[in-house]
Amino acid sequence: MTDHKPIDFYFEFSSPYGYFASLKIDGLAATFGRRVNWRPFMLGAVFKFTGGAPFMNIPLKGDYFRRDVERCAKLLDVPFTYPDVTPMNSLAACRAYYWLSDDDPGKAKELAQSVYNAFWGLGRDMSDADEVARVATAHHIDGEALVAATQDDAVKQRLKDETDAAIERGVFGSPFFFVDDEPFWGHDRMDQLERWLGTGGW
Amino acid sequence: MTDHKPIDFYFEFSSPYGYFASLKIDGLAATFGRRVNWRPFMLGAVFKFTGGAPFMNIPLKGDYFRRDVERCAKLLDVPFTYPDVTPMNSLAACRAYYWLSDDDPGKAKELAQSVYNAFWGLGRDMSDADEVARVATAHHIDGEALVAATQDDAVKQRLKDETDAAIERGVFGSPFFFVDDEPFWGHDRMDQLERWLGTGGW
Repeated sequence: MTDHKPIDFYFEFSSPYGYFASLKIDGLAATFGRRVNWRPFMLGAVFKFTGGAPFMNIPLKGDYFRRDVERCAKLLDVPFTYPDVTPMNSLAACRAYYWLSDDDPGKAKELAQSVYNAFWGLGRDMSDADEVARVATAHHIDGEALVAATQDDAVKQRLKDETDAAIERGVFGSPFFFVDDEPFWGHDRMDQLERWLGTGGW
Repeated sequence: MTDHKPIDFYFEFSSPYGYFASLKIDGLAATFGRRVNWRPFMLGAVFKFTGGAPFMNIPLKGDYFRRDVERCAKLLDVPFTYPDVTPMNSLAACRAYYWLSDDDPGKAKELAQSVYNAFWGLGRDMSDADEVARVATAHHIDGEALVAATQDDAVKQRLKDETDAAIERGVFGSPFFFVDDEPFWGHDRMDQLERWLGTGGW
């Protein structure tokens, strides 16, 4: 490991491209001696600034994106089931993440990976805190405490602050990365991100 | 050449990713014995359906995209100058294209390539019909006739019809391709398009 800054990885749980990115960003970063700082955020809050909307709900785009996501999953050869309910509400998952992350960032990341796997890998709606708690127990996380934390005012505020900070930094989609201060948006910019890591910019 | 259907290539002149795509789609198609059917359209008309807007005008996205476009141009090693005026109004260029395309699709394509080169390669505003006429003369196209054609009712209607047909087919961005009936959106899906051509789907 060098003393390079970690890569910031911003993602929305409801984003399939964020899911694809989550499966490889750690490995990619490690190749270049970097760690990854996982940052879930609420994309819906960003849409208030950009006038955007979940792609599933946009005329013309909705059909295309479903096809595109399924093609990408097939090419990447990763677990994938298109969920019946999209977009999911990622509030509970995000709050649970930040409830854990200060004390145990590794466990928070494991939870994020399991939520992604349940939603985009298995197609299960993960909007409910009880569902998040269910996957959390596999990581020896206290499910009842998790559910309670999702209603805790400090945890709610923490997620708001994290999302505001993401917007402040220019994050407008998922996944979104910063390598030092260089921004990369989209799973399909990970090749450029990799090149940037290799060359230190160009 | 086989008897495969041509690849449909939809593009907006104001789109830098359309420009990047225009530089390689013919060569890529030829590798697989395909021709390319160039289809300029008015992306602004599409935005009325999708609620979209030129990325240059969207909060947060505007700054990022400018950076992204410049990075892509550098990696692709293609002529590139970020124009002072974006987005350009592509009405005159599109009308001139369809005025030419039935009688001489090859010449229409040369005009499209020159307009792209002038706008995204050299950074010159090409909104005005006189500017389109200026680059057209290099291809032995009658500039005065071109300017007149951009005000011809039949030509105006033709562009409307072409844009409506694109929307009808699901085109919502630039570049947009169909390989047979398979849709691909974006310069960054040309790798998947290439793979599709090679395998006939997957």
